[in-house]
Amino acid sequence: MSDNSPLVGILSGSASDKPIIDKITGVLDSFDIPWEYNVLSAHRTPNRCAEYVKGAEGKGIKVMIGVAGLAAALPGVIAAHTLLPVIGVPGDGGPMQGSDALHSIVQMPPGIPVATVGIGNGRNAAYLATHILALGDESIRSRLAAYREGLGDSE
Amino acid sequence: MSDNSPLVGILSGSASDKPIIDKITGVLDSFDIPWEYNVLSAHRTPNRCAEYVKGAEGKGIKVMIGVAGLAAALPGVIAAHTLLPVIGVPGDGGPMQGSDALHSIVQMPPGIPVATVGIGNGRNAAYLATHILALGDESIRSRLAAYREGLGDSE
Amino acid sequence: MSDNSPLVGILSGSASDKPIIDKITGVLDSFDIPWEYNVLSAHRTPNRCAEYVKGAEGKGIKVMIGVAGLAAALPGVIAAHTLLPVIGVPGDGGPMQGSDALHSIVQMPPGIPVATVGIGNGRNAAYLATHILALGDESIRSRLAAYREGLGDSE
Amino acid sequence: MSDNSPLVGILSGSASDKPIIDKITGVLDSFDIPWEYNVLSAHRTPNRCAEYVKGAEGKGIKVMIGVAGLAAALPGVIAAHTLLPVIGVPGDGGPMQGSDALHSIVQMPPGIPVATVGIGNGRNAAYLATHILALGDESIRSRLAAYREGLGDSE
Amino acid sequence: MSDNSPLVGILSGSASDKPIIDKITGVLDSFDIPWEYNVLSAHRTPNRCAEYVKGAEGKGIKVMIGVAGLAAALPGVIAAHTLLPVIGVPGDGGPMQGSDALHSIVQMPPGIPVATVGIGNGRNAAYLATHILALGDESIRSRLAAYREGLGDSE
Amino acid sequence: MSDNSPLVGILSGSASDKPIIDKITGVLDSFDIPWEYNVLSAHRTPNRCAEYVKGAEGKGIKVMIGVAGLAAALPGVIAAHTLLPVIGVPGDGGPMQGSDALHSIVQMPPGIPVATVGIGNGRNAAYLATHILALGDESIRSRLAAYREGLGDSE
Amino acid sequence: MSDNSPLVGILSGSASDKPIIDKITGVLDSFDIPWEYNVLSAHRTPNRCAEYVKGAEGKGIKVMIGVAGLAAALPGVIAAHTLLPVIGVPGDGGPMQGSDALHSIVQMPPGIPVATVGIGNGRNAAYLATHILALGDESIRSRLAAYREGLGDSE
Amino acid sequence: MSDNSPLVGILSGSASDKPIIDKITGVLDSFDIPWEYNVLSAHRTPNRCAEYVKGAEGKGIKVMIGVAGLAAALPGVIAAHTLLPVIGVPGDGGPMQGSDALHSIVQMPPGIPVATVGIGNGRNAAYLATHILALGDESIRSRLAAYREGLGDSE
Repeated sequence: MSDNSPLVGILSGSASDKPIIDKITGVLDSFDIPWEYNVLSAHRTPNRCAEYVKGAEGKGIKVMIGVAGLAAALPGVIAAHTLLPVIGVPGDGGPMQGSDALHSIVQMPPGIPVATVGIGNGRNAAYLATHILALGDESIRSRLAAYREGLGDSE
Repeated sequence: MSDNSPLVGILSGSASDKPIIDKITGVLDSFDIPWEYNVLSAHRTPNRCAEYVKGAEGKGIKVMIGVAGLAAALPGVIAAHTLLPVIGVPGDGGPMQGSDALHSIVQMPPGIPVATVGIGNGRNAAYLATHILALGDESIRSRLAAYREGLGDSE
Repeated sequence: MSDNSPLVGILSGSASDKPIIDKITGVLDSFDIPWEYNVLSAHRTPNRCAEYVKGAEGKGIKVMIGVAGLAAALPGVIAAHTLLPVIGVPGDGGPMQGSDALHSIVQMPPGIPVATVGIGNGRNAAYLATHILALGDESIRSRLAAYREGLGDSE
Repeated sequence: MSDNSPLVGILSGSASDKPIIDKITGVLDSFDIPWEYNVLSAHRTPNRCAEYVKGAEGKGIKVMIGVAGLAAALPGVIAAHTLLPVIGVPGDGGPMQGSDALHSIVQMPPGIPVATVGIGNGRNAAYLATHILALGDESIRSRLAAYREGLGDSE
Repeated sequence: MSDNSPLVGILSGSASDKPIIDKITGVLDSFDIPWEYNVLSAHRTPNRCAEYVKGAEGKGIKVMIGVAGLAAALPGVIAAHTLLPVIGVPGDGGPMQGSDALHSIVQMPPGIPVATVGIGNGRNAAYLATHILALGDESIRSRLAAYREGLGDSE
Repeated sequence: MSDNSPLVGILSGSASDKPIIDKITGVLDSFDIPWEYNVLSAHRTPNRCAEYVKGAEGKGIKVMIGVAGLAAALPGVIAAHTLLPVIGVPGDGGPMQGSDALHSIVQMPPGIPVATVGIGNGRNAAYLATHILALGDESIRSRLAAYREGLGDSE
Repeated sequence: MSDNSPLVGILSGSASDKPIIDKITGVLDSFDIPWEYNVLSAHRTPNRCAEYVKGAEGKGIKVMIGVAGLAAALPGVIAAHTLLPVIGVPGDGGPMQGSDALHSIVQMPPGIPVATVGIGNGRNAAYLATHILALGDESIRSRLAAYREGLGDSE
Repeated sequence: MSDNSPLVGILSGSASDKPIIDKITGVLDSFDIPWEYNVLSAHRTPNRCAEYVKGAEGKGIKVMIGVAGLAAALPGVIAAHTLLPVIGVPGDGGPMQGSDALHSIVQMPPGIPVATVGIGNGRNAAYLATHILALGDESIRSRLAAYREGLGDSE
């Protein structure tokens, strides 16, 4: 957890998703975006998971990120319990190396969307959260603009 | 809903799953197994879905069946809220014709299993429920034995 | 194009994507979110496409949606030219029925994310845009809350 | 083989499936559920396999588990010869890493179901067997309830 | 069934495989190769299926062909009970349009091979049987040579 | 090459297929079936490949085996130039680990069949050749029967 | 066949590929590029196919296009017999709707490349041939430039 | 970069594609074909990428090669900005090992083709460029002919 009141709430179903979490928080830290991370499972701790998600908006969280592999229900279950935008990261583990998780996360029924990023691509979950937060926060927007200028693409 | 107190609780996420539901209930009826069916979504009505599932065992239901396509979180969410055995049927709709739903349903994390049957194969969900119920009910067992004998496989 | 200054800019690579566009605009209209739609191709009209995208933020657009099938480069190319959040919808046409487009859209390199929704699922692109816009617009947020309450999920 | 009269009969087609077998028996042991394990192949020893399966119910076995990779006919062949519920575990070996076995096991014809769990997920085969046995055995049910409570999901 | 003592024994698991069977028998008839066809299921009539296969060689059958879709265990089960060469035809039905059946049939364990032909390609099963029979029958060989010459490939 | 006049002609497109070749020849040697092996490519040495295949039957070869990965045209090209039965082994190399080769080999057009075995399963190519040769050679048949009896499947 | 000495030689393995051929020749005609088309199969008429390909360069043909579905060996076999650039079009027929053909055509061994275009995308085969021919023919180049300008992409 | 004015312009989206670049330049060097290589991304440096591509033909470049993994938009974006023939190489990295990149590169819309070679097959990109250049350069053609003769395929 970073020091300030978190803007991004990150959940993963298992502590083994830590390498992906580290990619997410590394990018968020580079933009000075405070976050919090919890391990909560859609399948093993469904009630605590729902409670956490229902309380997130009230704590000032603006964007939720769910990381999950295999059946990967977590991002969709988060989306079911909040009005915040939810980003899903398919884990790259297991025998199908994440293509199962990709389909589980992206193929949501109409009305309850999950913004899905690439398999194992925790960094893009954080960049996407940054783009969303930048809409309402000039200082985040200018850090994002600086990042993109730093890519060296002169016109 | 059939007349007696239901032994099998069937849920699907959408009324459009009716053709698969009809296959399930047709087989259950042929074995005189009472059932009830409700439309409840893991994503659109998560609280009502969880409440229903938590109450199922108390009503005398012995086996739950969840039918879902695409992200297909329903069977796993049912399994998260009950000690009853849960059978999952991947719907055969959508652009991936059910292979997305198959992976979403079968690739559950350890500890919260879903007994998965073939894509769109509602009949096998009902047969599987019948095999499970037959363990504790001689009359269902003898009807199942009669069905199998009727397949004409003399030794 | 809707009457007010658009908040959502929608692009598709071909006029044949109209059925998906109609799903997007139907949902946006239901939330009274103004939008504009243009046909611009990442491959056939790359310069006009880049110019449009570079100008979008200045016009007051907050969220971009790109719809594309097959190689489906459009959403990624939009993301390359803007700081706005970009949503990608894989088209469901062609011999692979959208699984090619899904991979093309979701597997973006780190730094340039596309928020991907399900194959052909234009409605979820619009719902996702609504969730993002609701973060900064109380009236959109209350219409979104009303929609979710209308799903009938009492606790 | 555990000491008491086995409730679960486990078969695999090859001794190389031992790592998955160990996951199954580890979970069954944790619930004090007696089991027996044999190597019998649907393809190399079809007659002995059929004889074993036909005799399983008479020995007091309540649930069969078949583990198989590649063509993975074993679970279906078990199901063909018994009225007991049959659980199938797709092995995760071979060049397709288990997606071939998953399809072979789950896509059974109507009337002869196999309750399929995730690729290589021996633990879930054991948990599923436990859920089924808990229907008719209060002591197993209370151990299963204790396991689920131990996951720490307060409401 | 053709008039003479059959050289090719064809089995399918269901009467619905008739269109593929017709392709097989059409080609065999064009080479004057006698055949017989029976519906016997590896899953619904396993004992009768095994008995038939065990008796095939004694009746003068030289090549077995098994047609099956979905889990498609039939060709492998035939191979388990005979020393005759066994040809497998993956049926093209079901939601995966035969790719499930292809994997189920071709990925046999070492020692019990099935000669697999293309999905739904009953004609190639018959041509392959003809090539095998031609090794030991000059008249079949000359009809096969005539067929190939008829393709008009001068050197 | 084994000492006697070869009954089985084995081709692979590249010397790197040696591990699969060794599996083939190991099984053939165990049945005392003489063979010869050459590296000839359908793409790099098409003329020499065609010449070799056209001459195979005249040398007493009864069965051809082609091993190939990736585009894997070799088995089909062998089949195009001979009346002998042709067995194809998909190589398990490359980024798709053999599923590309499987499709290339098995999906032959009607009239020119290739008897396809599992990915990388050189042993089954040899067993299949043995089954075919056993039809016309009592001594091979009795060795094959002994092998199968050795699997220990008493009735 | 068009009137002038052909610059593009088109082959397909079967007359049923005509719809794709029409797309190819429609585009070539729009650029006034003369072509010829023949049905020649890598599997059914391998010798005539090889002879045609070996003679193509001598007739003034500059680019070869091969159209094939399923095992789709034709483009690779063309490439094996010529120094001309070879374009391959995977046919979109059959139960796998062209993904088998795509892999068969594109995954060529090093040294014998095939320039592969999209599944069923005959038009892009013709456009690609046009780009290649434009390198050495100013008039074709200017017609291609006019086509691209006609797409309306002002800078 | 090689010494002479380059005939082949190679781009990759990231410096991590170096192993594939080395395969390309190794083959080009063996044919004495001058080349230049730059890292330019369709997503991170879209403006510089477009500028480079628009200038390539004017520098004497005849063939462009784009190497990209995952979403792999680079080859298509190159094709959008030039009349030169464009060859695409799908990178073999990432959790899908290149099948995502293959689809992204090959499934281009009609009018803007990319000549796609096998996953990770940089050598074939170079061989294909050589075939194209040989059409207009006798000395390259004779080196290509020598290479093919060196494969040892006597007729």
